[in-house]
Amino acid sequence: MWILSSIEDALNSLLSALNEYSIAKEVNVLDSLHMFSAKKYFSKINLPQYPKATMDGYAVMSSDCSNASLNNPILLKVLSHVIKSGEKKDFSIKSGECLKIETGGFLPKNADAVVPIEDVILSGSYIEITTTIGKYENVSLPGEELKEGDIIIGEGDIIRPWHVSTLYVSEYEKILVKKLTASIIYTGDEFNNTTLKPYTNYLVKGWLEEHGFTIDKIVHSKDDSSEVKNKVLELLGNHTFVIVLGGSSKGDYDTVFNGLQGISEKYVRGIRMKPGKTTSIYVIDGKPVVSISGLPAAALSSLELIVRPLLSRWLKLKFSPLPRVKAILNRRVTSKLGYVSFTRVRVFWRDNKLYAEPLVGGGSGSLRSLVLGNGYIVIPEEDEGYDKGEVVEVVLYGSIKEDL
Amino acid sequence: MWILSSIEDALNSLLSALNEYSIAKEVNVLDSLHMFSAKKYFSKINLPQYPKATMDGYAVMSSDCSNASLNNPILLKVLSHVIKSGEKKDFSIKSGECLKIETGGFLPKNADAVVPIEDVILSGSYIEITTTIGKYENVSLPGEELKEGDIIIGEGDIIRPWHVSTLYVSEYEKILVKKLTASIIYTGDEFNNTTLKPYTNYLVKGWLEEHGFTIDKIVHSKDDSSEVKNKVLELLGNHTFVIVLGGSSKGDYDTVFNGLQGISEKYVRGIRMKPGKTTSIYVIDGKPVVSISGLPAAALSSLELIVRPLLSRWLKLKFSPLPRVKAILNRRVTSKLGYVSFTRVRVFWRDNKLYAEPLVGGGSGSLRSLVLGNGYIVIPEEDEGYDKGEVVEVVLYGSIKEDL
Repeated sequence: MWILSSIEDALNSLLSALNEYSIAKEVNVLDSLHMFSAKKYFSKINLPQYPKATMDGYAVMSSDCSNASLNNPILLKVLSHVIKSGEKKDFSIKSGECLKIETGGFLPKNADAVVPIEDVILSGSYIEITTTIGKYENVSLPGEELKEGDIIIGEGDIIRPWHVSTLYVSEYEKILVKKLTASIIYTGDEFNNTTLKPYTNYLVKGWLEEHGFTIDKIVHSKDDSSEVKNKVLELLGNHTFVIVLGGSSKGDYDTVFNGLQGISEKYVRGIRMKPGKTTSIYVIDGKPVVSISGLPAAALSSLELIVRPLLSRWLKLKFSPLPRVKAILNRRVTSKLGYVSFTRVRVFWRDNKLYAEPLVGGGSGSLRSLVLGNGYIVIPEEDEGYDKGEVVEVVLYGSIKEDL
Repeated sequence: MWILSSIEDALNSLLSALNEYSIAKEVNVLDSLHMFSAKKYFSKINLPQYPKATMDGYAVMSSDCSNASLNNPILLKVLSHVIKSGEKKDFSIKSGECLKIETGGFLPKNADAVVPIEDVILSGSYIEITTTIGKYENVSLPGEELKEGDIIIGEGDIIRPWHVSTLYVSEYEKILVKKLTASIIYTGDEFNNTTLKPYTNYLVKGWLEEHGFTIDKIVHSKDDSSEVKNKVLELLGNHTFVIVLGGSSKGDYDTVFNGLQGISEKYVRGIRMKPGKTTSIYVIDGKPVVSISGLPAAALSSLELIVRPLLSRWLKLKFSPLPRVKAILNRRVTSKLGYVSFTRVRVFWRDNKLYAEPLVGGGSGSLRSLVLGNGYIVIPEEDEGYDKGEVVEVVLYGSIKEDL
């Protein structure tokens, strides 16, 4: 009798045995897109640096204009220069004067507001102002766009385009990001000959790359426990973790189990989910070795339901939020009581409503369900499925089309 | 008076003038992750190729077992071989015989079902079967995992991990993907000196990379219409499109407008959105030249609200679905009637509810709003904003945390 763990029990048990992982590498900020920051970074500057015009107009002292009205137009002398964006010379005005300024220009000394160009009448070297203007009107004050001490990014956050921009302007040239690498071992004597091509490897590799990992090794192992063990130990030293594909089922061979259980500080063997029931995780030297099915739908189920939360919690990675939509089931879907079900669906529009069609054929090996589908629903252990017409929440992994 | 277009009018008008774009490049399937397929690809194979065991057990003729029961156990002779996964030799059984088979093994000739190992009693060279077994039970039939002719991927779909896997196993070595490149010109005399660093470039570059574009050129242009024009023409020939940052506002200079309007087949100047009002798009040689503000929040607004739908419709790119959540506004937010508002928010959990805090300070230049926030709401033209307590839909671009 094989006692399977629930997903939550498995995660809690494994996380208590995994060592803290804090390996970081230094990269150029401009090359850091989509990596995970290894620490908090704060702004070292104020933006704008000085009060800045947010419109094209005239830099004035607002006190000069406090009584301006149509009946009481105020005349200000326009000094002879136009302050351009970013210009740093020391300009200044006195009461009764103004300077023409472009959007992005720094205000001259004593000026505290900008009158938009369209609100003044220019006559000779004077402008006529007929409405009051508030202090700091059309002015961006130092720190308004970015303040010294602002958190730019937290530990484990993905570096997105605005982070690159902000780190760069805030004088960071290099930053520390989490060093995340994994290697994949695919097992199976069937791949010793050349007629069968292993392909689930590339699904796993792509999934890991999408989650910020570099995969530099994909190696084969025969169905041999010592070979699996040796390859795992060899690769684990240089990588954040190792995934072993295939050989996970409880048959006559137990290749992976026999190879790894003796050297594990802790392990979870088998999880109450379908597909992916054979998912097993061994903690070796404080790192996880994830053993999953070589069949693609089962492998994706393990990656989405176990590996993502495990990596997220262990490595403190804040993965991108998953897009979710609610859709109406166009067909009944069943699930085995006591197992979490990873059910692939095709979500489509019909008559302005979103429907989800369960893709059930082909089981653990079904590539069809992955490529014909665009999302999945997760049916909890305590449910036996849903009826046609019920509204379900779908995690979307592809775009939604009109029904064919 | 500057007449601004609505987003939808701008898109429709531009799309009618853009040439069809069909430049593809050939890449190795294994290097194609996250590129956009340039055509439909169909499966050229059936998976499994032959009927395959989905459990460890015994391959039998189901007709042999049609009367099996506890009272009428059926004995089958176990031939001496174990069929392993992927093994291709020509095995066969006759009535009264069976062969031990592993998960993934191809059924021997005449067998049409697999009795799971845990459901039989082995005695000597015979197994005893005490329940009936249906035809094809525990068998995956040819094409069930992937059928010849199945659509693997459509034109414009993003190549995800399961597509790589499926294309690879379906005998595609190289495929055609859309060749998508862009270049960025940033304008401004303020960058002639070395004290001001242009940084919005990297936001735009990262955003385009996230959308599948390669950016190999980021060049500077002075605030000079002929220089802008010449650089645009030089770069446009080699790239899918060009983005010009800065110089888009309607001031005294109109640098970009003066440089490009004369050589445009069509253009839209100014769009009713905030920030990003100065967004202008010129169609030159059937390609778009997108002129946007050099300020980061305005630039992101243009990219999200104009550039993404434009590229998606023009190039037939099916971008990844955006994650959206509903959240309660914790503060009133206002918007200018007649303008679509791109309002950055910070979404957070408090008491098991999702709240959205509008980040309003700093205007078009606000990097703060981008890095302190994790999403945005789009307020339509006809609304003047929303009250505190209203539920709004947020497009999420970062992870959600507990309120600090």
